[in-house]
Amino acid sequence: MAKSKKASASKSAKMVYYFGQTKTEGKGKAKALLGGKGLNLAEMTSIGLPVPPGFTITTEVCDGYYKNGEKLPAGLMDEIQKAVVTLEEELDKKFGDDDNPLLVSVRSGAAVSMPGMMNTILNLGLNDVSTEGLAKATKNERFAYDAYRRLINMYGDVVKGLAHHDFEVAFDKVKKKYKVTEDTEVPAEGLKELCEAYKAVYKKGTGEDFPQDPVFQLQLAVEAVFGSWNADRAISYRRIESAKGNTEIGNLIGTAVNVQAMVYGNMGDDSGTGVGFTRDPNTGQNKFYGEFLINAQGEDVVAGIRTPSPVSEMGKWDKAAHKELMEIKKTLETHYKEMQDIEFTIEKGKLFMLQTRTGKRNGIAAVKIACDMVKEGLITEKDAVLRVPASDLTHCLLPSFKPTARNAADVLCRGLNASPGAAVGKLAFTAHDARERFELGENVILVRRETSPEDVEGMSAAVGILTSTGGATSHAAVVARGWGKCCVAGASDVEINEKAKTIVVNGRKFTAKDTISLDGTTGEVMAGEVETQEPKLSGDFAKLMVWADKYRTMGIRTNADSPADAKRARAFGAEGIGLCRTEHMFFEADRIIHIRAMILADAEDDRRAALKKLLPFQRKDFEGIFKAMAGCPVTVRLLDPPLHEFLPHEAAAQKEMAAELGVKPAEIKKRSEALHESNPMLGHRGCRLSVTYPEILEMQVQAIVEASINCAKKKIDAQPEIMIPLVGTAAELRILREKVEETIAKTVAAKKFEGKLNILIGTMIEIPRACLTANEVAEYADFFSFGTNDLTQMTFGYSRDDVGGFLPDYIEHKIVPVDPFQSLDQTGVGQLVDMGVAKGRSVKGKLKVGICGEHGGDPASIDFCNRAGLDYVSCSPFRVPIARLAAAQAALSQK
Amino acid sequence: MAKSKKASASKSAKMVYYFGQTKTEGKGKAKALLGGKGLNLAEMTSIGLPVPPGFTITTEVCDGYYKNGEKLPAGLMDEIQKAVVTLEEELDKKFGDDDNPLLVSVRSGAAVSMPGMMNTILNLGLNDVSTEGLAKATKNERFAYDAYRRLINMYGDVVKGLAHHDFEVAFDKVKKKYKVTEDTEVPAEGLKELCEAYKAVYKKGTGEDFPQDPVFQLQLAVEAVFGSWNADRAISYRRIESAKGNTEIGNLIGTAVNVQAMVYGNMGDDSGTGVGFTRDPNTGQNKFYGEFLINAQGEDVVAGIRTPSPVSEMGKWDKAAHKELMEIKKTLETHYKEMQDIEFTIEKGKLFMLQTRTGKRNGIAAVKIACDMVKEGLITEKDAVLRVPASDLTHCLLPSFKPTARNAADVLCRGLNASPGAAVGKLAFTAHDARERFELGENVILVRRETSPEDVEGMSAAVGILTSTGGATSHAAVVARGWGKCCVAGASDVEINEKAKTIVVNGRKFTAKDTISLDGTTGEVMAGEVETQEPKLSGDFAKLMVWADKYRTMGIRTNADSPADAKRARAFGAEGIGLCRTEHMFFEADRIIHIRAMILADAEDDRRAALKKLLPFQRKDFEGIFKAMAGCPVTVRLLDPPLHEFLPHEAAAQKEMAAELGVKPAEIKKRSEALHESNPMLGHRGCRLSVTYPEILEMQVQAIVEASINCAKKKIDAQPEIMIPLVGTAAELRILREKVEETIAKTVAAKKFEGKLNILIGTMIEIPRACLTANEVAEYADFFSFGTNDLTQMTFGYSRDDVGGFLPDYIEHKIVPVDPFQSLDQTGVGQLVDMGVAKGRSVKGKLKVGICGEHGGDPASIDFCNRAGLDYVSCSPFRVPIARLAAAQAALSQK
Repeated sequence: MAKSKKASASKSAKMVYYFGQTKTEGKGKAKALLGGKGLNLAEMTSIGLPVPPGFTITTEVCDGYYKNGEKLPAGLMDEIQKAVVTLEEELDKKFGDDDNPLLVSVRSGAAVSMPGMMNTILNLGLNDVSTEGLAKATKNERFAYDAYRRLINMYGDVVKGLAHHDFEVAFDKVKKKYKVTEDTEVPAEGLKELCEAYKAVYKKGTGEDFPQDPVFQLQLAVEAVFGSWNADRAISYRRIESAKGNTEIGNLIGTAVNVQAMVYGNMGDDSGTGVGFTRDPNTGQNKFYGEFLINAQGEDVVAGIRTPSPVSEMGKWDKAAHKELMEIKKTLETHYKEMQDIEFTIEKGKLFMLQTRTGKRNGIAAVKIACDMVKEGLITEKDAVLRVPASDLTHCLLPSFKPTARNAADVLCRGLNASPGAAVGKLAFTAHDARERFELGENVILVRRETSPEDVEGMSAAVGILTSTGGATSHAAVVARGWGKCCVAGASDVEINEKAKTIVVNGRKFTAKDTISLDGTTGEVMAGEVETQEPKLSGDFAKLMVWADKYRTMGIRTNADSPADAKRARAFGAEGIGLCRTEHMFFEADRIIHIRAMILADAEDDRRAALKKLLPFQRKDFEGIFKAMAGCPVTVRLLDPPLHEFLPHEAAAQKEMAAELGVKPAEIKKRSEALHESNPMLGHRGCRLSVTYPEILEMQVQAIVEASINCAKKKIDAQPEIMIPLVGTAAELRILREKVEETIAKTVAAKKFEGKLNILIGTMIEIPRACLTANEVAEYADFFSFGTNDLTQMTFGYSRDDVGGFLPDYIEHKIVPVDPFQSLDQTGVGQLVDMGVAKGRSVKGKLKVGICGEHGGDPASIDFCNRAGLDYVSCSPFRVPIARLAAAQAALSQK
Repeated sequence: MAKSKKASASKSAKMVYYFGQTKTEGKGKAKALLGGKGLNLAEMTSIGLPVPPGFTITTEVCDGYYKNGEKLPAGLMDEIQKAVVTLEEELDKKFGDDDNPLLVSVRSGAAVSMPGMMNTILNLGLNDVSTEGLAKATKNERFAYDAYRRLINMYGDVVKGLAHHDFEVAFDKVKKKYKVTEDTEVPAEGLKELCEAYKAVYKKGTGEDFPQDPVFQLQLAVEAVFGSWNADRAISYRRIESAKGNTEIGNLIGTAVNVQAMVYGNMGDDSGTGVGFTRDPNTGQNKFYGEFLINAQGEDVVAGIRTPSPVSEMGKWDKAAHKELMEIKKTLETHYKEMQDIEFTIEKGKLFMLQTRTGKRNGIAAVKIACDMVKEGLITEKDAVLRVPASDLTHCLLPSFKPTARNAADVLCRGLNASPGAAVGKLAFTAHDARERFELGENVILVRRETSPEDVEGMSAAVGILTSTGGATSHAAVVARGWGKCCVAGASDVEINEKAKTIVVNGRKFTAKDTISLDGTTGEVMAGEVETQEPKLSGDFAKLMVWADKYRTMGIRTNADSPADAKRARAFGAEGIGLCRTEHMFFEADRIIHIRAMILADAEDDRRAALKKLLPFQRKDFEGIFKAMAGCPVTVRLLDPPLHEFLPHEAAAQKEMAAELGVKPAEIKKRSEALHESNPMLGHRGCRLSVTYPEILEMQVQAIVEASINCAKKKIDAQPEIMIPLVGTAAELRILREKVEETIAKTVAAKKFEGKLNILIGTMIEIPRACLTANEVAEYADFFSFGTNDLTQMTFGYSRDDVGGFLPDYIEHKIVPVDPFQSLDQTGVGQLVDMGVAKGRSVKGKLKVGICGEHGGDPASIDFCNRAGLDYVSCSPFRVPIARLAAAQAALSQK
């Protein structure tokens, strides 16, 4: 019986992994299992770095905790007990000892770093008895009671959810009694009294005594860490990250818990604590970038309460520790071949590594670090291409201030250059306010003393963030950098009055109605609106683009409707236009009147007469675009929107239009009403217009052909591709292709053109039925271009104009992992794309296939497109570099 | 060289098939090749029936004619020449002979009968010389010139498109000259003059002399028949038939041409012509049903110009011929095992069969004939089931007049009972008028002297058809019967004044504003509206239904929202409710106020309070439906439409609602505007409502559960199935299923119910993505029900409310073969259904799957559903018998 019981127990997964001198069980295990922090503690231990020993409780346990109705799984506490015993033996300390007690920290650590989101408890193991033991062992009573009061406070806050305020009131009372202002000035006696006062706060708030059993403390702490996994702010952070395309974060099953022997940076002036990056996360410079505080615990640095000193000055204080840290930087980068984000503590002159992880950086730094590491021989070109998150290239493409405008700017003060970029907006004083005004279309800058996880929604909504306290590793700085959002932190000259909604900077007052400009690259805060400029695309950026182009296999085109857009996209590296919408061309003042006249016409002849007036405009547009894209294909989509979009709906505008056209307003109203549709998205638009009004198609094709002929005469290599939108049946394309071919022939004949025109005729695949019958449709198509915007609308049954009513709820409830209009739904819509490609190519092996929905600029979607075998993606000009890099990453990672 | 040429010639398909004593080349060939008429002429010849010899030009030649730019294919005229020679030899007559000339008829004949649609030419071969020859041979100059003038008239009309009117004017002149009123009274001399006059009309109209070469006449006639294949009226007929689900007609490649030696029913009083059915096509009675005219050509009967005598009286005139005809009836039915529609001619006492084909009949007759033929041992039960067109069962389900109302009715006159049923409507005098008023929602009865193919659109729009001339086989009668539309023909007491838009019946005048009632079963025309009643479903109908139920494998459910509908459907044989829409229940006056209050509420509590008031109504509704469907499953769909559908949009109605609810009208306007959606079809509706407002789902589920408990207490076997609509992701169903389960448990606990409730929870599959991810969705579904209305909308990208703008054009251009909302698009939407079934069952082998879109009552769609492996179809109560039969046919034909 005993044997079979044991066998069945051994079957269940190991829940606790030890790391230390005794053994390092977690080395080489999966990050998904141990979390990033846990795995890295094991790794660092295994490569000989000074890491306080401890153990990691797996993410599977967290998953089990939730599946088990928020209860710890059976057997967990036994495994923890065993690990604690090993720890006690290794350190020769005992939990709750009255002589030399073992103290531990308890920290969360998921597989993906979530800064500031998860709860941490320090000094666990202290109770009334062991605090005395700690005082004895450290010969420092003040330190011991300071640690104890911190534990009670943190424990009350994190495990029991008590208000921090009550503890502060108690602390203030003690400080008053001892007539001091700083925490550090309170004597040991005062801290002893404070511990009693804190225990009273704890009892008052919870109805229980502060737990004295260290193992019970540990159990509740582990539960609290697990509990924090589903706290609102954690869910909110994951949601925002997911929405930005971070699919990894959506797949997390929970957090691990790291229990680690405490070391103390607050044991006196020979102790300290710091955090840092092995390279500069803003610029990418290969220079340790960090901050430290003397006689402090690590949380003090991150929380931004005291302003720390840069690590570059650490040598002045402790040369040996600084030297060791610089050696560790090298060891870590050689081991991980990546820039690291570390936490360290110096306890009485001895350096301990508490954490390492891949360092977050903005796109500019990411590009530089990748290029530098190739130069340094640490990584290969391919690694470099794979390493820079494609979306982060936006940072390289961020605007900066115009030097002339900068020189003339009214600089109010300077803070820390926490996250680069240039931001101009009006002041918002709360996250809520920032969110609301953002939704009303306003550009706002969120101004906070310091930010906290509760602020992330508002930070996400703001164009820039300004804080008056906190350093370059404060919450505001870390989060803003992750998002590539401009941030100036610790601008201590900025006095914030949240209630009055004003800031005062060196005597000058600004309200919510005032605009300021932030330079995240220099840290300057300027009054008023300073003019911005576009970024330069040279140096490392250009090098990375060259590598990307070397390894990618898909072409990159752009969606552009004007010569200006076409030129811009070409500068960004676009190899053609994948979508040139023709309807935008009709909205200009000198054109809209003709299209309206056409819509009002009852007879085909009148429509043709109106269209004839549009022809020269269209021809000129196309000629300009063909010229800007000379030598590259230009996919022109024929008129797509329903006709009523061109008519005014308001009475006043109808009256105006009537006057212009010389008809009665009633006539316009009548026509507008006749064209009204219940669901215009599914109405009379796209190729359906060409079936009922072939004369529109004829005019557009004539314009394309005449523009091509004009180009040919000027030796400009125009490569038009005529795209027929919204095809759902092969018959539509057959009929319209015939009409296009006829019109081409007719126009060529009329122009007596004898050169060669190479015009392709294809279709936009955006209706589910077109995917399902792609083998039939392909018979009449020279190319397919997936219009995944509409395809997503129809596959999900979501009107993009109306999803506001439920999609936020859907994302929150994880009904959809991300907004399917931002990142292509590979599970559903992706099947239709795969089907469209496979069926299309089943009849035309070399059918050219691309994508021109907005997904064409989304890295995750580009990865999918590469897998689906698409020939190219097309995206907005600004996203072309991102697409180039994402395409290279897809090609390399899918090899 | 000569050899290889011959070989290559023999490779091309045979174009002409001979039938006669010499040889019968077409026996056993495909109907698709020879057309129905051509094949049957060959068949009749082969079983020894007296058929004038001739030959058939294949449908492939017609197809080739169109593919060849409307030119006859090379070699055709050679083949025709050879067949003509064989014919001349067999009959010992010669084309164009001055002694005993060969004369032929030229008739169209597609594989599917298209009554009155195609052109016919008689007496071909006559010219100035051979007419004299015919006069000699028949010793009847009057007859010969009468034949010649008919040829010139018909030829001018059909081949050259000359106006019939010009010929009539010439005829009237001759009649005036000879002072006669009837055609038959004109003497030979007059007819001779008439031929000259007709030739002059011909020359004036065409600029050419009437052709004298019989072979050339033949060639032009063949081309004319081919040309008529794509005449507007033929296209229109095929379109209407296609739209009604006749897929066979959509697959036709063209018409065959039958050239056959002429026989004459107008050679004097010992000659005659007739048409008839081997059984009564109205009642199905096993009694020859036909009409004949003495001394007339066949076209005279069909055209309805002279009123013929019933065949039952034929024995009085020619006993032998009548007896022979009755024997032929038997031979034909034994050979074809089907009721036949025949044409015959008696030439100087000798009977000739000119045509046989399967006889059209209405549903009532179809059922009786099928049942009788089983009794007679001609066919099996399975044959009987397969033979009755499922859609035609509507005829058995047609309303009749209430006997009491009938007895009291104001009978104006009696015509022929041309097509059974009861019709009540206002008078329409032109097809166009009928169509227009139909589209405005009016019930109209089309009143015409006689109908012609040009009238079919109006006939289709009318609820009934009344003609003042023409018999039971006139155009109006044949077409109306085919459609199961009530028709009274040849009501000679009705004087029609088309211009004044009045009829006068025995001195009483009726205008377009007056309502009349038609009894198609008795032929009576009644003034005013006579009350109608539902049909009885017993006798042969019941027998056929028993057979259908024996052979079908799919279940048949109904879409019903009320106990009354449920009862009706059950009487029609429904085995459950496949779709019970709950929103209709909210629109009643005493309920709408509560749902409106709910919509206006800002807070969940207020919504719950309003919903609480709706609960008793819903519970009562469900209880009634469960009771009516006791022992059968009832699929209840949770609230589906967007909330704004429940709010009034007009200012006046909003004001009224505000008064009722005690709020400001502005509040209602604001809410209504906030709920407005650009594309409500793709908006906040279906399960999306339950995700954002779970309290609505909770109220509905609570009502279902309480109703079930109440039923259980009354020993009523309620079998609710809760259907969650518009699911596009598995997560939606997972979350909502949990909520439904919770609510069930909560309600059962609150009611302290200890019995067993068997409630299934499933989903409506109506979003393409649900099909694509059906394997995920099925994890949380006890059943799937395909909502093919919405699935069609999204798969095609067609808004059903807006297709009017282009779908008619699409059907006309054959871009879609039929309206995809009427008959399921098997090519596209069908793939998604197949995928949904296969993927769903891949994770749940026995997943119950049905369909509840309107396609569930369409025979072609039911055939598809059976192939797709669905467990049941659900349709409107009235279509349940049709679905039962169609399901049996699908099961039998797919075996």
